[in-house]
Amino acid sequence: MNEQSTQKIVAEVIKQLHYKSKQEVPIGVSARHCHLSKRDIERLFGKGYQLTKRSNLSQPGQFAANETITIVGLKGSIGGVRILGPERGATQVEISQTDTFKLGVKAPIRLSGNIQGSSPITIVGPKGSVYLDEGLIIAQAHIHMSEDDAYHLGLHNAEHVSVEIKNGVRPILFEKVRIRISPNYNLEMHIDTDEANAGAIHSGQKGKIIKAGNVQ
Amino acid sequence: MNEQSTQKIVAEVIKQLHYKSKQEVPIGVSARHCHLSKRDIERLFGKGYQLTKRSNLSQPGQFAANETITIVGLKGSIGGVRILGPERGATQVEISQTDTFKLGVKAPIRLSGNIQGSSPITIVGPKGSVYLDEGLIIAQAHIHMSEDDAYHLGLHNAEHVSVEIKNGVRPILFEKVRIRISPNYNLEMHIDTDEANAGAIHSGQKGKIIKAGNVQ
Repeated sequence: MNEQSTQKIVAEVIKQLHYKSKQEVPIGVSARHCHLSKRDIERLFGKGYQLTKRSNLSQPGQFAANETITIVGLKGSIGGVRILGPERGATQVEISQTDTFKLGVKAPIRLSGNIQGSSPITIVGPKGSVYLDEGLIIAQAHIHMSEDDAYHLGLHNAEHVSVEIKNGVRPILFEKVRIRISPNYNLEMHIDTDEANAGAIHSGQKGKIIKAGNVQ
Repeated sequence: MNEQSTQKIVAEVIKQLHYKSKQEVPIGVSARHCHLSKRDIERLFGKGYQLTKRSNLSQPGQFAANETITIVGLKGSIGGVRILGPERGATQVEISQTDTFKLGVKAPIRLSGNIQGSSPITIVGPKGSVYLDEGLIIAQAHIHMSEDDAYHLGLHNAEHVSVEIKNGVRPILFEKVRIRISPNYNLEMHIDTDEANAGAIHSGQKGKIIKAGNVQ
């Protein structure tokens, strides 16, 4: 084997090793939470109220607020629902399917932000309550990534992939995980508490991205 | 092609079609429930008490009782937990991982019946309460089948398979599903409510059995 061939092989091995390691994605488990519009913050917490930061989230600029609200359905209510800031254009409440049974509501499985025609819900704060005609969803599993991550993984925005998470007890594979690309995103997969419990998954565990079509 | 070859091919096609259809397994979603020993039935409901039948379950001889109990942990309690009959040698409580957070308890993921060294739990009935040293588990996903089903599927007792459940919204694959063979069993896969909610699965939906090793 001549030197040129050796160099070619080594380069290919390095590329493949890099790709293999990049297939791993850290998991973040999202508990029920909401995003509020400026108008709804004022209706729930009072005129001119501003959310206060409790802790930073993994995605740049996003934070968990100290403030929480109560959500109410026909069969029950759930208190202590964390508000995530900053404020958004439209109010959105993300719950698990387990929560829908407790509240006595239905909610579609949607990508965050896609709330048109989603379910109604009542939100209660210390200074008022809001009845949303739409805005209640169960979040579809998704992976945040930068354009650089997407390039190395050979993935495109809005594409679906499968992700396998193996932990010994309840190995599981989620088959319809949406890719979300933005220059600001850190690589992280977001699942809800039902998905986490079904796979005995904790935040910080790693999943393996499998391109659609590679699963029998 | 001679007649003998044609017959051989047709026989093979029929066999394969049969096998394909047999790979489908109906899903049953198990809500939290318990099985009680005769001794614990008497401690919870009174001396000589006998469970009364509410409805038959899919497995022959098994039934949901009219009676329910309350389970209590350090952080909370859950009432209305259905008792499944008939009585068993040892009391066993099966909950979801979601329930463990509400109760403030830990529970291992175990096959039903394998309770040695599992978690403690308090059970409360109308005539008394019982503190179990062990018996609290989260049930491992499993498939009940007859010996005939197992033969046609080429499966053995205690083997693990993967099962894919596709419903459009949250397609999912459970990778460690245990095969349980008994002459009396009807073909059915049992999952808990967390697994059902993670896959937007309802009882009666079908899953596809994939033999271990066939998934990349």
